[in-house]
Amino acid sequence: MSKSFNISIIGSGNVAWHLAQELEKQGHTIREVFSRNLAHAEELAAQLYCAQAQNHLDFTKSEARIFFIAVSDAAIEQIARHIQLPAKAILAHTSGSQSLEKLTAAPTQKTGVFYPLQTFSKGKPVKFKEIPICIESEDPKTEQQLLAVAETLSDNIALVDSEARKVLHVAAVFACNFTNHMLGIAQEILEEQEMDFDLLKPLIKETVNKSLRIGPKNAQTGPAKRGDLTTLDAHMEYLQGREDWLRIYKLISEHIMNEI
Amino acid sequence: MSKSFNISIIGSGNVAWHLAQELEKQGHTIREVFSRNLAHAEELAAQLYCAQAQNHLDFTKSEARIFFIAVSDAAIEQIARHIQLPAKAILAHTSGSQSLEKLTAAPTQKTGVFYPLQTFSKGKPVKFKEIPICIESEDPKTEQQLLAVAETLSDNIALVDSEARKVLHVAAVFACNFTNHMLGIAQEILEEQEMDFDLLKPLIKETVNKSLRIGPKNAQTGPAKRGDLTTLDAHMEYLQGREDWLRIYKLISEHIMNEI
Repeated sequence: MSKSFNISIIGSGNVAWHLAQELEKQGHTIREVFSRNLAHAEELAAQLYCAQAQNHLDFTKSEARIFFIAVSDAAIEQIARHIQLPAKAILAHTSGSQSLEKLTAAPTQKTGVFYPLQTFSKGKPVKFKEIPICIESEDPKTEQQLLAVAETLSDNIALVDSEARKVLHVAAVFACNFTNHMLGIAQEILEEQEMDFDLLKPLIKETVNKSLRIGPKNAQTGPAKRGDLTTLDAHMEYLQGREDWLRIYKLISEHIMNEI
Repeated sequence: MSKSFNISIIGSGNVAWHLAQELEKQGHTIREVFSRNLAHAEELAAQLYCAQAQNHLDFTKSEARIFFIAVSDAAIEQIARHIQLPAKAILAHTSGSQSLEKLTAAPTQKTGVFYPLQTFSKGKPVKFKEIPICIESEDPKTEQQLLAVAETLSDNIALVDSEARKVLHVAAVFACNFTNHMLGIAQEILEEQEMDFDLLKPLIKETVNKSLRIGPKNAQTGPAKRGDLTTLDAHMEYLQGREDWLRIYKLISEHIMNEI
């Protein structure tokens, strides 16, 4: 049987929103929700069983023993510096791009990272069981406690230190941010000619599914992959009026060709 | 009630494979399957009710009145030049990147394009109803017939001329080929550090779903979008050893930043 914990959540954004509710769903108790804006804290607390909303960082009287910082990356260090915790409390941030060191100023040695590797939107339910949760701590007991919490949420848990998390973040920029930007350019190319981006959506879905199923290297298609210079030339001629798109088209096509 | 047609398929690759079977599922009859390699034609014919496999292009005695060319782009013009058809037959190719003109040498004026905008793999079933089918013909009666066939397969039919199809193809290179390549780079970045690409898969799936749901412009996130120079610098430093990845990282990040 899995253990249940008393937990407080620092933050009220997308990650805080989903994490707090999922933790309660798995039997844990959320004691406090912090936001600088009390109304935001209250909004999330209203979704929970008995959580108190607060807009100050004094948790010395909290019954919670685990504190998750789920705020914007830039605010993590300030929170760690100013938070007041009960004795022996664990403090973990939930960011993929921030090192464990950002918690150095915290009033506890029991620090860690508890990073659910997913993008969250408030209105959209997520399947936590499938989300990888990346855990890091230099204190073995803290690591063990964070693993115990993670195991109640997900089937997919990994110990990932700050250095590896940075690699993961660089990879995610390519796989997610840049991928999204490619979709954005495609949409603009179509809308410039008053064509509907919807036409491409079934193809995009299947392309990504296939890429994840058989691996991107096996799934690569297109004129650059085929070395089809006639089509590449025709496309570059079409893109003449947009130097920025043309440069991206050339650079990525060349990169694909050089990998053949 | 939808009309059913006698149809022959020139080709035995992925598109031919799925198209032929779906046409029969919707009540049409496939009369012949052509491949230069008779064994390939036979393999597909074996999946159909009464289709004959053949490796020559003489269809003068065929009962089919619609002939779909589903071969590699480079072979379309040769097929059109050498095919022999019964009187009044319609000849349409199924390629997204080839113009209608490629059929000029065909022994019929009733030419067209019948382009299912999807990527097909032999083992993988597809939901034809959701696949956009792009139709083009300069002959109104041919266009009407091709539309009638398309309507039996899909709920998503568009009249798209060769010029618009070219725009669609350029957009698809960004949205699909380049997107896949970004996933490929992400995989390499991880594997270089012996990390598992699987970790990123749930995030990639949700990122793409979100992008298609709310639109790529609204969905854009990441350090470039935030103008987070500290993270951008850290990532570029990490990529120092790989000049090719670094150039792609810089160019796309700058492009995202300039769009803010």
